[in-house]
Amino acid sequence: MISLINKDFDEMQKRYRATFFNSLNGFKSLSLVSTKGINGVNNLAPFNSIIHIGANPPYIGMIARPETEEHQTLKNIRETGFFTLNHVNASIMNQAHLCSAKFDAEISEFTKTGLTEYYSEHIEVPYVSESNIKIGLQLETIIPIPLNNTSLVIGKVIEVIINESNIEQDGYVRLDDAGTITCAGLDSYFKVEHLARLPYATTN
Amino acid sequence: MISLINKDFDEMQKRYRATFFNSLNGFKSLSLVSTKGINGVNNLAPFNSIIHIGANPPYIGMIARPETEEHQTLKNIRETGFFTLNHVNASIMNQAHLCSAKFDAEISEFTKTGLTEYYSEHIEVPYVSESNIKIGLQLETIIPIPLNNTSLVIGKVIEVIINESNIEQDGYVRLDDAGTITCAGLDSYFKVEHLARLPYATTN
Repeated sequence: MISLINKDFDEMQKRYRATFFNSLNGFKSLSLVSTKGINGVNNLAPFNSIIHIGANPPYIGMIARPETEEHQTLKNIRETGFFTLNHVNASIMNQAHLCSAKFDAEISEFTKTGLTEYYSEHIEVPYVSESNIKIGLQLETIIPIPLNNTSLVIGKVIEVIINESNIEQDGYVRLDDAGTITCAGLDSYFKVEHLARLPYATTN
Repeated sequence: MISLINKDFDEMQKRYRATFFNSLNGFKSLSLVSTKGINGVNNLAPFNSIIHIGANPPYIGMIARPETEEHQTLKNIRETGFFTLNHVNASIMNQAHLCSAKFDAEISEFTKTGLTEYYSEHIEVPYVSESNIKIGLQLETIIPIPLNNTSLVIGKVIEVIINESNIEQDGYVRLDDAGTITCAGLDSYFKVEHLARLPYATTN
């Protein structure tokens, strides 16, 4: 094993360092975030920094990069107040990855990738039809992270669209049965194999 | 597929709802967070809400639950300013899970689980020797999330201990080769199988 410290990080080339630190801290949740611009154009972008914030009320958070012309997701969420998370499975992995490309903001990634819009009566932003777990959210708060101009976007879950067979009796969601994949870094994708569900840990 | 909305969430029993929403939003990174109390007792706790915040400088964030007597991690980080993240692999999965039990604060989880302390010259908090990817951090900031009294704890990476063979030429960390596992919900563990690394997405 080697020990890398600050001077080693400083000596890394910019792209090497980004790749290293993006892949270093573990496997990540992966969803396509769907939003609608006030111009009516739908946007899809892959996000891998999605975290559980709370169950009651149900809150989900994600880290958004600094707002620019090229990143419409945060702008759209701020303007419309709604977004959807759509789990990525292996059959739409390539299309999901393609959504990270810098497309013309006037053309929807649904059109560009061939993914299908699915509209529910409960939210005006489309879901991705091909996704097996779809989560509709209402913006709750945007917490700035002044360190590097990113933000923690927190939404309140207002709808979950899922196969009933993917929910076990105790409420546990079988992500593996739904085909959900995981990722590392910015470009690496993995399917999973279940090891175990362990009993509630006690000191006995 | 079924659509669940607010009234369905409200009707869920408390434990069912916690299990459902903890497992709903995708696979998660899993590390043992190691800290040292000002009383000198080391603490280990599993965290699954670890997110990439930035690469330059390298920042990693994690969501901490409200500070209580039973949750020493945040208290220790606040008091000492340092913590380590230690990736969980299948061979220490059971011990890592056991660290979620409510042990007496006077006895270290290292002692309780048989995991081995590993000390580096660069940080006073121990690493977990059995972990194949070890990350040392200095507290940078704690951002409160007033919605539910959780916090986003952000540390600056000051050391990475890793097998050189787990780093590819472009800086990409082979988490699968390091044996790192992923988790869903509060009790479910998965190993991974690599699908693909995809090329940088362009609009052509």
